[in-house]
Amino acid sequence: MDSTTLAYIAGFLDGDGSIFFQIVRRKDYVRGFQVRGSIAFYQRTDQHRILSFMKRQFGCGYIRHRKTGISDYTVVESKEVRRILLLLRPHVRLKKRQLELGLRILQRLESRKDADFLAACRLTDRFRRLNYSKRRTVTCASIAGSCPRRD
Amino acid sequence: MDSTTLAYIAGFLDGDGSIFFQIVRRKDYVRGFQVRGSIAFYQRTDQHRILSFMKRQFGCGYIRHRKTGISDYTVVESKEVRRILLLLRPHVRLKKRQLELGLRILQRLESRKDADFLAACRLTDRFRRLNYSKRRTVTCASIAGSCPRRD
Repeated sequence: MDSTTLAYIAGFLDGDGSIFFQIVRRKDYVRGFQVRGSIAFYQRTDQHRILSFMKRQFGCGYIRHRKTGISDYTVVESKEVRRILLLLRPHVRLKKRQLELGLRILQRLESRKDADFLAACRLTDRFRRLNYSKRRTVTCASIAGSCPRRD
Repeated sequence: MDSTTLAYIAGFLDGDGSIFFQIVRRKDYVRGFQVRGSIAFYQRTDQHRILSFMKRQFGCGYIRHRKTGISDYTVVESKEVRRILLLLRPHVRLKKRQLELGLRILQRLESRKDADFLAACRLTDRFRRLNYSKRRTVTCASIAGSCPRRD
């Protein structure tokens, strides 16, 4: 993919997209929780072709059409999220802190150590401040009294 | 300005910006109406630095901070709008029709002939369909029975 295409997608992401990491409860996971990262692009459903264009560029993720008339193109698979963040890294401006934080989280998640998982959770908590989410309910503190104060 | 910066700005415009032309009543204008074009970029006021970045790139326009917590960077001066549209032309994807229509309107407005002004007004009416504006009240038909049906 050439740099102008990547710069275009980075601009689109900064204008109307999101880089988002959250801790979700997962009964089927050994630790009971998953740190899930996502990159999402939004657009009116009648203009969803731009989302298909991006999906073609990255070759992963899925497009959903919501009843609200808004569609989104979302990537959640960790390896793909990391690959896309690295591709967009030289061009993203507004969401640079989210992007760098996301890469740090993904790096921690590559390890299987509990300490690294907890470090990833603490870093994920920081997304709350960056993205002004009102809905986030599971924080590092939810994770069974095992979350050290600093990383 | 290098092509990756332009591509980034085009992506930002496609994601959360607008290219908009409208007919406005102007008592101080000979014809009583003005065709006004604008390019606008929006962002949360606490992240308005990205708008300042764009303003620096183009060296024109103004930034407004609204009480809603949203800021915008807007360019309305015709020559500047034309210059920016030409710069972004190779990179814009989603708003390509608006961009090409805007350039056609601006070309007509360069002439001082009534026929060209009316042609510009008819082309401007098309923005209603492209941008789904609910607020547009002045259309070509408002202009004193002088608007031919076709251009």
